[in-house]
Amino acid sequence: MSYLDQIQTPEDLRKLPVEALPDLCQELRRFIIEQTAEHPGHLGSSLGVVELTVAIHYVFDTPNDKLVWDVGHQAYCHKILTGRKDQFYTNRCYHGISGFPRREESEYDAFGTGHSSTSISAVLGMAMAAKLNGDKQRNHIAVIGDGAIGGGMAFEAMNQAAYRDVNMLVILNDNKISIDQSTGAMSKYLLTLTASPAYNRFKNRLWNIFTFKSKSSNRITRFFSKLGNGIKGYLLGGSNWFQSLGYRYFGPADGHDVIYLVNTLRSLKRLPGLQLLHVLTVKGKGLEMAEQHQTAYHAPGKFDPETGQIIQPDTGDQPPKYQDVFGHTLLEIARQDETVVGITPAMATGCSMTIMDAEFPERVFDVGIAEQHAVTFAAGLVTDGMTVFCNIYSSFLQRGYDQVVHDVALQKLPVIFCIDRGGLVGEDGATHQGAFDMAFLRTIPDIIIASPRNEHELRNMMVTAYENAKAKGLPFAIRYPRGRGVLLDWHNEPHTLPIGTGELLQDGHELLVLSIGPLANNVVQAIQKVKTDGITPAHFDVRFLKPLDEQKLLELANRFPVWMTVEDGTEKGGLFSAIAELLEAHQLNHIRLEHIALPDCFISHGDIPSLYKEVGFDVDSMAAAMRQAVGKQ
Amino acid sequence: MSYLDQIQTPEDLRKLPVEALPDLCQELRRFIIEQTAEHPGHLGSSLGVVELTVAIHYVFDTPNDKLVWDVGHQAYCHKILTGRKDQFYTNRCYHGISGFPRREESEYDAFGTGHSSTSISAVLGMAMAAKLNGDKQRNHIAVIGDGAIGGGMAFEAMNQAAYRDVNMLVILNDNKISIDQSTGAMSKYLLTLTASPAYNRFKNRLWNIFTFKSKSSNRITRFFSKLGNGIKGYLLGGSNWFQSLGYRYFGPADGHDVIYLVNTLRSLKRLPGLQLLHVLTVKGKGLEMAEQHQTAYHAPGKFDPETGQIIQPDTGDQPPKYQDVFGHTLLEIARQDETVVGITPAMATGCSMTIMDAEFPERVFDVGIAEQHAVTFAAGLVTDGMTVFCNIYSSFLQRGYDQVVHDVALQKLPVIFCIDRGGLVGEDGATHQGAFDMAFLRTIPDIIIASPRNEHELRNMMVTAYENAKAKGLPFAIRYPRGRGVLLDWHNEPHTLPIGTGELLQDGHELLVLSIGPLANNVVQAIQKVKTDGITPAHFDVRFLKPLDEQKLLELANRFPVWMTVEDGTEKGGLFSAIAELLEAHQLNHIRLEHIALPDCFISHGDIPSLYKEVGFDVDSMAAAMRQAVGKQ
Repeated sequence: MSYLDQIQTPEDLRKLPVEALPDLCQELRRFIIEQTAEHPGHLGSSLGVVELTVAIHYVFDTPNDKLVWDVGHQAYCHKILTGRKDQFYTNRCYHGISGFPRREESEYDAFGTGHSSTSISAVLGMAMAAKLNGDKQRNHIAVIGDGAIGGGMAFEAMNQAAYRDVNMLVILNDNKISIDQSTGAMSKYLLTLTASPAYNRFKNRLWNIFTFKSKSSNRITRFFSKLGNGIKGYLLGGSNWFQSLGYRYFGPADGHDVIYLVNTLRSLKRLPGLQLLHVLTVKGKGLEMAEQHQTAYHAPGKFDPETGQIIQPDTGDQPPKYQDVFGHTLLEIARQDETVVGITPAMATGCSMTIMDAEFPERVFDVGIAEQHAVTFAAGLVTDGMTVFCNIYSSFLQRGYDQVVHDVALQKLPVIFCIDRGGLVGEDGATHQGAFDMAFLRTIPDIIIASPRNEHELRNMMVTAYENAKAKGLPFAIRYPRGRGVLLDWHNEPHTLPIGTGELLQDGHELLVLSIGPLANNVVQAIQKVKTDGITPAHFDVRFLKPLDEQKLLELANRFPVWMTVEDGTEKGGLFSAIAELLEAHQLNHIRLEHIALPDCFISHGDIPSLYKEVGFDVDSMAAAMRQAVGKQ
Repeated sequence: MSYLDQIQTPEDLRKLPVEALPDLCQELRRFIIEQTAEHPGHLGSSLGVVELTVAIHYVFDTPNDKLVWDVGHQAYCHKILTGRKDQFYTNRCYHGISGFPRREESEYDAFGTGHSSTSISAVLGMAMAAKLNGDKQRNHIAVIGDGAIGGGMAFEAMNQAAYRDVNMLVILNDNKISIDQSTGAMSKYLLTLTASPAYNRFKNRLWNIFTFKSKSSNRITRFFSKLGNGIKGYLLGGSNWFQSLGYRYFGPADGHDVIYLVNTLRSLKRLPGLQLLHVLTVKGKGLEMAEQHQTAYHAPGKFDPETGQIIQPDTGDQPPKYQDVFGHTLLEIARQDETVVGITPAMATGCSMTIMDAEFPERVFDVGIAEQHAVTFAAGLVTDGMTVFCNIYSSFLQRGYDQVVHDVALQKLPVIFCIDRGGLVGEDGATHQGAFDMAFLRTIPDIIIASPRNEHELRNMMVTAYENAKAKGLPFAIRYPRGRGVLLDWHNEPHTLPIGTGELLQDGHELLVLSIGPLANNVVQAIQKVKTDGITPAHFDVRFLKPLDEQKLLELANRFPVWMTVEDGTEKGGLFSAIAELLEAHQLNHIRLEHIALPDCFISHGDIPSLYKEVGFDVDSMAAAMRQAVGKQ
């Protein structure tokens, strides 16, 4: 019987002798590799924190002690150790366990995560609650990566935390990489900390031996910690960022030596107040190919658990991903105009801005996990005549909302937002669904909002946005989904669209379907389906959510007594609302308005077909809705 | 003829001998005091940067060199020196100049500001544009306060800036105060930098003399700067936060010695790359009472320009400010339950959380300018059984939008958001109008949204939200306006409201007016007015934007063929949209829906009566709209 077989909860883990932990880690690593090979997920980051996870749960009294995983995609080992080993094969599946910590899933998930840089704020809240309750014993641990700690809200939290006397340990999981290589001064700085030979000599000879390897009393530990901090500062050439913020800095520590980590955490557990432990880990640790190709193995899909070889699904001739269409089109535009620059907050690979980066690295800015800065940086560039494509995932743009309002729209600066991951994203679940963008953008004055139904239209919209920017037009948002389009022959000669115009794709009778974005393709199929029932809906691709094609819509109002909006966004505030407002404003009371949209609730994770069925986006559901709309059920 | 009389633009300023600058500064200070005494505005921060402003425009080639004022309320001296002296008496008035930099107002306003912490991102964009254009000469300056630099996006920008080789000077205007006392580790740290006696000795004896007071060559300047940084680091005990991020740190410098500032800036102008100049200023400098009472003189209203004495308007018996009703009610609740805590991101005075702070300082958290952190910190506290009132201004909540979605609503954590400055705020203008909150919140699932029509209702809603939180209900947002309520006898015995219910304030015929929030009071008056025309509208206070009181609304649908929504928020996505959706969803096509709401554009600054007339919120406009709605114009 393996060690892992004996563990259902951290209680069981703590019964093991410390010498057993290295073997347990190997079993855990093997388990994650085998499970993730078959049921794809975030492999690399979870492999990197196996030892750290074991050490934390071994030393601390979870779930009483509070543990929050920043971003949370590295929490597989945590999930396996906290009662979800047997369900782990359902990871990220429809109705299975989530790929991120979720409070509703386990009491060990002290705080749900998904977006980056939230952990210190949340843990500080818990630590402050303990302080107010007079609880000096409970421990509060945030584990945050070197990419995530560069996010502004992590800094805000560190800034407040250092001001307050609370019992909190921030573990900086430094693997030098987010999804792509980490960027920015912080990242460079961490490298300095890590690489200083003087410091490393010191660490090995003195700090280790005296502070952590002896059974020194608290007083001695404190003394050496203090001394250690002072000497570290000196050896590091006079600057420790964390210490200047009031944290007691420890590290860097080898994140793959589980016994060393256990000893270190035991020592830190005895120290009150604010501490930062800097741990060095290797993303993908233990699977050679994952260590060597860290970006590819962030979330590799299916792979061979022995060799690590990624299993390329036999895609045959398939339409391209919208991401690649974006990437290639951006490159084409950038080749023709050297004022064109690209900005991505740490998603260069995910959004395929790597394609432009390969040819024009000096005009591509990966600003790190920093959506707020990305937006205003874009605005600054535009004031100076640059033409900026700022690509942000839909759910992450929520982070830059004020900047879109205050720095872009209010100043009418024609930043081009390419909003990736609009609509349902599938396995990443509720935190990542692009459900709200159309609604929260539509409320902002002076911004153009478009969504393409296919790859050609994405290219047309990008060219339209580009020309609008050159003509000093308004800010322009193009939102499109994750994944593949619908056209094998995607590489059209793009042309400018008149801003604020839709396109009647199909004329018909009685029922007018108004769609925006890629659900148009399901509408087309549903219309085919209902033809056999003698129903012949017309289909209008609204194309621009803002400004709406009022002229055309008012014309159509005369001919169609039943309208149905279709959108892959929330029903509160998006296309449905826009059309409802239009009908009311023009007193078109003879029209009955139906809608297909995301319901007003958070949509969980799962494969897209299952989710589409759940919310009525599949062809059958749409056809049924059309029949019902015209009373021919 | 005074020096100031000779200056219309910085060109004129640069013609003055440097010896004239101290006198000019006195004239400018006097001018600002006299103007602001009569035409209220942001006094303290503008008085603090007189010398800095003069020195910057004297040394740098504005507007060719780019200068951005963070937040921007300290830019009065800048405005006066850049062509707006003669219009300055219209500062913050309707159709007058803005209280903040605005690109549309002057080419010297390189970037519009209003919200905090944006300047480094914007200036970095400009500096990067210059770099891409091969322009190595142009200078790029961001002036940012010690409060604003604690905002997360400033850190994000500093982090990226340090990674890139650009020509940028960040001037840290350190006056130890935002509006209230600055908080957090950064603030403590700056004090350390400032107070270190060893460092100050060094600065005075060495750095000053050799680097800046001699006419040293560039090479020598560089040498001493380098040496200086090294020695500074050593003397400061081994930690310079800015240097660890890659900035060359200079300072702290006396921000009220204009000639010294000129010499310093001249030296820095010659250095390429990233620099940070730490300048010490006194908020309110030159007006004794303003120096002594910095929070009160942040924006003191009218005052005596000689003595500084604030002129208390003879308010007689007036209703209280909503802010004070919030503050007192919060204190009442906090007295009865020690789990109650308050959070404010740097607006303790503005939102009157000072009232609770005076009695329970350990349960009030001013987290600094850190809206993102404020929201997630609140969520963390709630997971641990605390009852959290998180007060954020409407337009600043845009900064915490993702956190409301991802950390609060998605986890159904009953944080109580008290959203101050909902609706039009008046003189602060477009950046500060609370126009979008109802729309951007309504799109989020699982959040309760309420807005009170008067002080009693605010208290009722706070108690309702409190009890909902104790019962582990949903997140709860209460939005209310800036300024005075309508009730002299505001201190009712508050009672719980059934969540999701409105109140029929007035029955009537034909026309049903649905209002949310304080515009209800104008509706009441307008209804009085139209009675003489034989029109008798009913008036329903919706009270809860989400969930809507569908049951009651459906009952009313049978009796009123014309509905009119009234809200002090945008017409795109708020109450109007919610009711339009309701009518469509229930196929209530016999109802005609009119609306009064903010139009879909940014609303500029001015006094509330003028703005209300502009957007149709005044009683006369409302009455006219009611007449029109029933065809009796």
